[in-house]
Amino acid sequence: MQEVILTKRFEFSGSHRYYRPQWSEEENQRVFGPNSRPHGHGHNYTLEVSVAGRLDEATGMVMNIVDLKATVLEVLKEFDHKNLNADTPYFKERIPTTENIALVLWELINQRLKNGALRAIRLYEDEDLFVEYHGE
Amino acid sequence: MQEVILTKRFEFSGSHRYYRPQWSEEENQRVFGPNSRPHGHGHNYTLEVSVAGRLDEATGMVMNIVDLKATVLEVLKEFDHKNLNADTPYFKERIPTTENIALVLWELINQRLKNGALRAIRLYEDEDLFVEYHGE
Amino acid sequence: MQEVILTKRFEFSGSHRYYRPQWSEEENQRVFGPNSRPHGHGHNYTLEVSVAGRLDEATGMVMNIVDLKATVLEVLKEFDHKNLNADTPYFKERIPTTENIALVLWELINQRLKNGALRAIRLYEDEDLFVEYHGE
Amino acid sequence: MQEVILTKRFEFSGSHRYYRPQWSEEENQRVFGPNSRPHGHGHNYTLEVSVAGRLDEATGMVMNIVDLKATVLEVLKEFDHKNLNADTPYFKERIPTTENIALVLWELINQRLKNGALRAIRLYEDEDLFVEYHGE
Amino acid sequence: MQEVILTKRFEFSGSHRYYRPQWSEEENQRVFGPNSRPHGHGHNYTLEVSVAGRLDEATGMVMNIVDLKATVLEVLKEFDHKNLNADTPYFKERIPTTENIALVLWELINQRLKNGALRAIRLYEDEDLFVEYHGE
Amino acid sequence: MQEVILTKRFEFSGSHRYYRPQWSEEENQRVFGPNSRPHGHGHNYTLEVSVAGRLDEATGMVMNIVDLKATVLEVLKEFDHKNLNADTPYFKERIPTTENIALVLWELINQRLKNGALRAIRLYEDEDLFVEYHGE
Repeated sequence: MQEVILTKRFEFSGSHRYYRPQWSEEENQRVFGPNSRPHGHGHNYTLEVSVAGRLDEATGMVMNIVDLKATVLEVLKEFDHKNLNADTPYFKERIPTTENIALVLWELINQRLKNGALRAIRLYEDEDLFVEYHGE
Repeated sequence: MQEVILTKRFEFSGSHRYYRPQWSEEENQRVFGPNSRPHGHGHNYTLEVSVAGRLDEATGMVMNIVDLKATVLEVLKEFDHKNLNADTPYFKERIPTTENIALVLWELINQRLKNGALRAIRLYEDEDLFVEYHGE
Repeated sequence: MQEVILTKRFEFSGSHRYYRPQWSEEENQRVFGPNSRPHGHGHNYTLEVSVAGRLDEATGMVMNIVDLKATVLEVLKEFDHKNLNADTPYFKERIPTTENIALVLWELINQRLKNGALRAIRLYEDEDLFVEYHGE
Repeated sequence: MQEVILTKRFEFSGSHRYYRPQWSEEENQRVFGPNSRPHGHGHNYTLEVSVAGRLDEATGMVMNIVDLKATVLEVLKEFDHKNLNADTPYFKERIPTTENIALVLWELINQRLKNGALRAIRLYEDEDLFVEYHGE
Repeated sequence: MQEVILTKRFEFSGSHRYYRPQWSEEENQRVFGPNSRPHGHGHNYTLEVSVAGRLDEATGMVMNIVDLKATVLEVLKEFDHKNLNADTPYFKERIPTTENIALVLWELINQRLKNGALRAIRLYEDEDLFVEYHGE
Repeated sequence: MQEVILTKRFEFSGSHRYYRPQWSEEENQRVFGPNSRPHGHGHNYTLEVSVAGRLDEATGMVMNIVDLKATVLEVLKEFDHKNLNADTPYFKERIPTTENIALVLWELINQRLKNGALRAIRLYEDEDLFVEYHGE
């Protein structure tokens, strides 16, 4: 009874700014450097979504990739070609670091998938920096 | 006494068709979409084979990469430049999804490697879709 | 009045077989090797389409990428998830080598773009093999 | 007396917005789609800078890569981790399309390199979309 | 209280030779093949360093990437543009296989990071061969 | 009568040192930096070989890829897993810069291909630095 992990890769483009209003400009600059510039900057994010499960005997699939794709694209519509601070509700209290974006994406995708299928997400800010989250 | 995981990447090219004879044409089309077209289509598959173990003190290696390469290429000869449905015996009863191809490759490689060395395989259908299997 | 070249990358998946009916099986095998296997094999093709021109002063674009994308995807519908020998009309008399597929794609895309915009196409059979064609 | 072309790749991250004030909101939305959203979005740009020339006989180089790198990084400081519309002077009258950004970068790099060394630049907005400019 | 894994990728260039003085030339040649050639050869190594932890609530980060980068670059100065056998002290008794280089890098990076933050390293000799080590 | 360009990618691993005996140690260090270290360092080189021509009507090919591959691999045997300064005859008087290695490879490949088929070579020292040569 084997478990297989299936991963699909997605891309979206966003801009963001790292800024903590409780801190002075100098403190923001010291901690976040160029990430704190007032008008923001941006990235092509790559998101890998991994689901796990036993294979359906009829189809030989963990999950129909068409369904997985529809679910994740639905979630990414809120993020793609957006300014993450200004255009989404998720980063009013949290800084849109790669880590925090990953936690938000996990939450949104996990709610929409059948119980427990989501195994991991990996979010690349660029090809040399990425975070992984496994939900615990 | 540290364990290190060594991974080698391979490529092969195959064609396949997703089709379940117990189902009507319409049902096949609904579930598998363009993957069910009668003459098949194809991919450049990328396979990552991971073996794990303690290092041999004399050589500083988990396994001689020359041996690993020979073993896996021997297995892949049955798949490369083939139609997976018609030219191999493995997909008469099972649909050659990426998931099922991974299970078959695990079986064939695991038999040929010394006990328990095989840790994981990852099979890419293309750079945006891949499956992993760890043998349990 | 500067000319800029704009390139958009696309992917499609096809299967094919190299076979020349005027030749014996042995001759086909000698020239085409595993590419001549009767049931075909397949690839994930990557296509780069390059258009050139002066920038539109209002938009700052060579061509609206939305239009370029629609045009090329329309053409690729005939090829994606198909067996190029059996499912398209283009390779009845010609062998579906990467070179010949590129010539066919040039013809079909060039007809649909405004006069002379198409500058080059590059077609990758895999990441280590590609052909380019400039229309002359 | 052979001429060799040397290319060095760089990366920078920026955000931008496509918006033409002479047009209505609807016209901007129709032409630029999600690229016209008010708070902008962003990309990891990749820039390839190509210089050409005969080899210096003593060093065997077209140009010392250390000098080329210093010149281009100096130029990119104005763009990296910036909002291209708000934080640079170049896109007040022009829309920061990939094409226009490439023309600006050509101008700035060409001024700083010895006469005629600059042969081409290629600017990737993401790995599937890029523009090239040769200065004429 | 979620744990997130953050990975940063680095590159360095080194040369090496696989040679075991206790063995005859023939034995070295038999086991190590072209890797045993007397003047060595080289690679562009890619190193992925993964740290794990809970997010700092103020910054939304596992670790400030600026600090992680400084720590790893400090370590890599000993390896970059070096002959690993001759120019570093680590491979006098051990062969500089990818496995052994990974163990040495783990040791050096782990000492410099706060307790237990280092989760994994992955070292690529080239894009088709890599090793992973998790410290146990 | 169309001309198509066919490109095949190859890899080899070499080590090298940039050093000009006519110069003092200080001058070598000033011009070549870490590339002048006495024991050398190394790279995974990627070589793209482009041939051009009309298509053979029977085969639909510019050149049989099997022949092109055999020719180039024959040439690369002299370079792969070698120290380019010590193990090849080509860099006794010239420094093994990427530019000079490209000129040598052009010469050796061009001699072995049928008249005028070789159109260009591109040699990558790593993914961010490459040179092109067109033979004139």
